[in-house]
Amino acid sequence: MPKISNKGTSMPESPIRKLVPFAENAKKSGKKVYHLNIGQPDIKTPEVALNAIHDFSDQVVEYSHSAGFESYRNGLAKYYNNLGIDVNSNDIIVTTGGSEALLFALNSCLDSGDEIIIPEPFYANYNGFSTSAGVVIKPIATTIDNGFALPEIEEFEKLITPKTKAILICNPGNPTGYLYSKEELETLRDIVLKHDLFLIADEVYREFAYDGHVHHSVLNIEGLEQNSIVIDSTSKRYSMCGIRVGCVVSKNSEFMATAMKFAQARLSPPTFGQIAGEAALQTSKSYFDEVSAEYVNRRDVLVAGLNKIEGVICPKPKGAFYAIAQLPVDNADKFAQWLLEDFDLNGETIMVAPAAGFYSTPNTGTNQVRIAYVLNIDALKSSIRILDEALKVYPGKK
Amino acid sequence: MPKISNKGTSMPESPIRKLVPFAENAKKSGKKVYHLNIGQPDIKTPEVALNAIHDFSDQVVEYSHSAGFESYRNGLAKYYNNLGIDVNSNDIIVTTGGSEALLFALNSCLDSGDEIIIPEPFYANYNGFSTSAGVVIKPIATTIDNGFALPEIEEFEKLITPKTKAILICNPGNPTGYLYSKEELETLRDIVLKHDLFLIADEVYREFAYDGHVHHSVLNIEGLEQNSIVIDSTSKRYSMCGIRVGCVVSKNSEFMATAMKFAQARLSPPTFGQIAGEAALQTSKSYFDEVSAEYVNRRDVLVAGLNKIEGVICPKPKGAFYAIAQLPVDNADKFAQWLLEDFDLNGETIMVAPAAGFYSTPNTGTNQVRIAYVLNIDALKSSIRILDEALKVYPGKK
Repeated sequence: MPKISNKGTSMPESPIRKLVPFAENAKKSGKKVYHLNIGQPDIKTPEVALNAIHDFSDQVVEYSHSAGFESYRNGLAKYYNNLGIDVNSNDIIVTTGGSEALLFALNSCLDSGDEIIIPEPFYANYNGFSTSAGVVIKPIATTIDNGFALPEIEEFEKLITPKTKAILICNPGNPTGYLYSKEELETLRDIVLKHDLFLIADEVYREFAYDGHVHHSVLNIEGLEQNSIVIDSTSKRYSMCGIRVGCVVSKNSEFMATAMKFAQARLSPPTFGQIAGEAALQTSKSYFDEVSAEYVNRRDVLVAGLNKIEGVICPKPKGAFYAIAQLPVDNADKFAQWLLEDFDLNGETIMVAPAAGFYSTPNTGTNQVRIAYVLNIDALKSSIRILDEALKVYPGKK
Repeated sequence: MPKISNKGTSMPESPIRKLVPFAENAKKSGKKVYHLNIGQPDIKTPEVALNAIHDFSDQVVEYSHSAGFESYRNGLAKYYNNLGIDVNSNDIIVTTGGSEALLFALNSCLDSGDEIIIPEPFYANYNGFSTSAGVVIKPIATTIDNGFALPEIEEFEKLITPKTKAILICNPGNPTGYLYSKEELETLRDIVLKHDLFLIADEVYREFAYDGHVHHSVLNIEGLEQNSIVIDSTSKRYSMCGIRVGCVVSKNSEFMATAMKFAQARLSPPTFGQIAGEAALQTSKSYFDEVSAEYVNRRDVLVAGLNKIEGVICPKPKGAFYAIAQLPVDNADKFAQWLLEDFDLNGETIMVAPAAGFYSTPNTGTNQVRIAYVLNIDALKSSIRILDEALKVYPGKK
């Protein structure tokens, strides 16, 4: 029998993978499960995007250019320009979701065995892409106590070795909802310039910045032109996760030429996704205003509700649609499983993502969960009630 | 300035990349260029697939299951069953094109520095995916003299080292059009079983087997159940290259569980592509009969026409829609560029893919080109005339 690669064996599983069979069993037994565990928004996809798909009239669905439709890249450049980001279509390669954009960036900047610094907790799939690319993640700790703010510059310096090639941030953050200030990004600039690193910023939640806070792109930090790479995606912005279209953006032409070689090998990004993405650029401001108001409302209900429960701590996120909550439990993995297997409130329960899967330092975040507020207000209120009652009877309560 | 990775620097470019600016200039100067250089068929996408896209009525384009829609995987299992291949939906993961299927297979079977044996000439992007995965290609020579048949078993034995983890074939072959016999596949079985290797077969051209020849899948070779992995794609089968949907198929459950981890990291394959792919399973037999008849007709015109030209040798391919032709020229790279830059016949010229890019052994195939017969008969006849006249006046004629 042939052997699986070490890469394959060490490839991490999704943090909620172990819970899926329990969720399925819960549903089979007739329980209603509120899914707070994944970032699949219930928001409608803009009609303008769906209409463009319906209107497709070509007779052959051909390959597109490996960098994506030129018209779409021009449209994307305009979208960035309107945000005050000075890029043109040559600085953009359309990718199959933000996932592929990240893979192109890792492969172009880091060799097997090279190191990338990522503030933790971080989006769990960064582990998978790093394993794929043979890259070693060096996590830098952020804590719930200050809402997951950027660590001091000295903490970064401690981690930097000759193998360090890049820092990766998610802004606003999944799973923390943390939004970096301009000063924090300037601190990162100073570090990457001093050590000749790339700064890769996953900005897929850019539009989800609340309470008047402004999102700052690394593409707009002075002096970072040759070091900054943005990972972007249409998935969350237009609530069309299934179209699998994102892009990688950088003003470093050597990086772009390299990423382009990876893009050429896989021929082209999905045609229909690009059609939807290009049309979605026409989405009205009112769509985003409504969506943003809805998320703020949800976040406020969620965070207030959670913090009212004894022993629960949940910092108020400034962006994205996730929150990390610390729970008074022995172990959030066990608790999440118990919620699905052994608990219900009037036939209903919740599924949450244990936060340990978002930390790469072992035994960290074991009493935390990530909650995605992608459900409507009523569902969120029911979910909070369920959590409250569950914590009253959970045998592993602390 | 931060440094690009060695992986990125050594990432190969597409064999026709260098020619693209010359083709653009030729068009700008008013020349008509017949594109024999890429595998973008002019055949219509089945209506049933396009209709399914038009009929999409969900309001949110959600993530699908990471392995693909269950209904689609069930449909794919039935498609394979109808070909006599005994697989079920658990043996199938839907991927973003055959490209991603290959990347999952390489990452699951080979570590950085491991070796894969591939008969050359081979699909040029195998180089790119191998570089991505850190895998080293060990080419095994096949020659135009016997139509690119499988080399003797001894030749494989010479290449096998402790680092050899897999053999990769393309059947029918791009760029050769070669169709492996059952006996050849059994030879490969004996080698992979003896050395505990995976046999990865890119069978995306399965339906394109001509003259009554039968395509044999590695999934159907007795004893290979735990060793064989099939790379598949809807791109060529249904002439819908842009939808970016393929799949990876294996009865080795450990391999499938590993590939699934890579699939989960990138969340899901494209929704619209899957909708088109699932609907396309209903494509009538008459569609394939017509397409096959058309390709046979094109191949016959092409191969007969080429072999009539003095000094040109073109073996008759049994499958796919490519042919390798040996030309009486000093260097096919130079000739291909000259055709675009310095030649026309009544304002028309051709673009061909120099075959050296399909060989990984240096200085091999330098007088060969790959021709994709994806144009209609009239265009092919004009192309042959152009090549004939061009060879009469090309300064580097041999």
